[in-house]
Amino acid sequence: MERADEGLAFLLRYENIAWYKNGEVRILDRRIYPIRTEFVTCKSVQEVAQAIKDMVTQSAGPYLAAAMGMALAAHEIADRKDVDVLTYMEDAAYTLSHARPTTVEQMKRIVGGAVDIVRQSLREGTRGEALVEALFQYAFNFVNNNYKKYTLVGENLAKLIPKNGTIMTQCFGDTVVGTILRACKRLNNPIKVICAETRPYFQGSRLTASVACDMGFPVTVITDNMPGYTLKAKNVDLFTSASDVITVDGHIINKVGTFQIALAAHYYGIPYYVTGTPDPDHPDIRDVRIEERDPELVLKALDVKLTMDGVEGFYPAFDITPPELCSGVVTDLGVYLPQDLKRYFADSEKNSQEE
Amino acid sequence: MERADEGLAFLLRYENIAWYKNGEVRILDRRIYPIRTEFVTCKSVQEVAQAIKDMVTQSAGPYLAAAMGMALAAHEIADRKDVDVLTYMEDAAYTLSHARPTTVEQMKRIVGGAVDIVRQSLREGTRGEALVEALFQYAFNFVNNNYKKYTLVGENLAKLIPKNGTIMTQCFGDTVVGTILRACKRLNNPIKVICAETRPYFQGSRLTASVACDMGFPVTVITDNMPGYTLKAKNVDLFTSASDVITVDGHIINKVGTFQIALAAHYYGIPYYVTGTPDPDHPDIRDVRIEERDPELVLKALDVKLTMDGVEGFYPAFDITPPELCSGVVTDLGVYLPQDLKRYFADSEKNSQEE
Repeated sequence: MERADEGLAFLLRYENIAWYKNGEVRILDRRIYPIRTEFVTCKSVQEVAQAIKDMVTQSAGPYLAAAMGMALAAHEIADRKDVDVLTYMEDAAYTLSHARPTTVEQMKRIVGGAVDIVRQSLREGTRGEALVEALFQYAFNFVNNNYKKYTLVGENLAKLIPKNGTIMTQCFGDTVVGTILRACKRLNNPIKVICAETRPYFQGSRLTASVACDMGFPVTVITDNMPGYTLKAKNVDLFTSASDVITVDGHIINKVGTFQIALAAHYYGIPYYVTGTPDPDHPDIRDVRIEERDPELVLKALDVKLTMDGVEGFYPAFDITPPELCSGVVTDLGVYLPQDLKRYFADSEKNSQEE
Repeated sequence: MERADEGLAFLLRYENIAWYKNGEVRILDRRIYPIRTEFVTCKSVQEVAQAIKDMVTQSAGPYLAAAMGMALAAHEIADRKDVDVLTYMEDAAYTLSHARPTTVEQMKRIVGGAVDIVRQSLREGTRGEALVEALFQYAFNFVNNNYKKYTLVGENLAKLIPKNGTIMTQCFGDTVVGTILRACKRLNNPIKVICAETRPYFQGSRLTASVACDMGFPVTVITDNMPGYTLKAKNVDLFTSASDVITVDGHIINKVGTFQIALAAHYYGIPYYVTGTPDPDHPDIRDVRIEERDPELVLKALDVKLTMDGVEGFYPAFDITPPELCSGVVTDLGVYLPQDLKRYFADSEKNSQEE
């Protein structure tokens, strides 16, 4: 199958996200990249789950790590006759999917697909290293199909960027950052990129900026208090972010900071385009609860405590941008108004019938 | 003279800003406080100028350091008959006032006052350590009068905070942070404080939060991408910042980030009050140029480089908040609408005539 990660940055190549080979899953440590380029090597399902829990990788990374972890699980018992394969693999699926509390449902869908393969393989008599290979192929197809979808999203967003334009990003949109830039390259549009650093983990300066730099685009980092000023000072043409959830009624839940950049962009009449697809599990904003993370993290930078004892922290991981601050939701099927996202599902159905 | 720093935090006590004693000026190193509490000890005017240049202290700190530096200059030549006192002191004034390019004018006013004292003392035959003492007293009066003025500003702002209310701050407003909180204490109003950390130097988490914590107020730090979300989530009653310049037509130039917090506060109907006084040297916003600092600084946290080689930085030190996003300018004479700041000068004149 053609690989959809061709031409993307180091950080976005499959082997550098999470990759099974010869009894190991190797995961790029995104907590410290590019200060140091280090991989965590996992030799068991437990080690993969621990790496996911420890946030060695983030964004879409944990999903590929979990899928590759299923291949590793099959390898662990490839030569053992004393183990019930299905039970072992279901246990592995449970361990991997529950590594982090907030992504259990999405994880279950992915490792559940791997368990389906196990069941089918067992019916067909496929075991041992052949099962490992089938699960590796499943993981590969999972990430590759995802990249194909984001190739379309990237192309649809790239069309909205003026020639020689400047875009501002928030946090690390993972795959889509690469596919937008690859699309710009193919359109022969040498855009400039401005990244907000995204505290407390600096995903903007460490990850997004590295992707842009790796792919040959001029990229400028600013701290998170600067987007409002910079939007105007640097004549930004377009603000874009990915999304953790887009509700069907057009609210965007994304890395905290997105809202205040979108608000400033709106103030200056600069469009904000979000990438992603509406989530049918979230019809409206009412049931959305914003996850709070360990408040100690905002009191630190690179593990150094900055505050006096007695000072507290508050770490809302995401914020909510209302539909009226968003110019469009850029999906694989095209661009939709945030007020008109039901049409995405209709188009999606039409599309799948046509296929 | 009664000291106006009574009851303020450690960081705001005169001895802990910059203080001349026995031939040394001791300056608290605000670059690293409270991670470490260290003082830089200067034994010459050159060392004081270097400390100012190196940003050992910041905000109002350099002005006191320069004033105390003039006492140190007089001490350097107290026993020397071979030196022309006035020339030496004028040279010292030049060295101190030119330590940092952006504050030359304000610095010149302060060290110029010290040179006036030298002239008068020489006329009166005061020399040696008596001149040192006169210059120390000048420095003391300078900071003490400033604190008295900010006591009034703090009292005027404190009156605007609801009982048991929550305020959000930006950067480190220096003296006024302390005087607001002291006024709240005197009004028996145990407010809560939320500080944006203020990258790249973390003045919010290191300085403002320390002042509030030291003075016994519950204080919560957030990163600079969180104010927009937090204003609503934590039911903030009032956003306040100090100002580097307030133009007579009501624009506020302050630490970058102020604009986007003011914008979010406006979105939620939360008032933004700036402390400070209009600057007659800046009738309107047209001639204001925003200082840009070393872009490398935004690529680092605590001196660790976060980005890949080839990534650029952009470091606008300040931003501009337009008058329509500000609910009031809180001065020593009361609260003014940003559209009505000429009245401040009229009131000020009236006041000085009455005195």
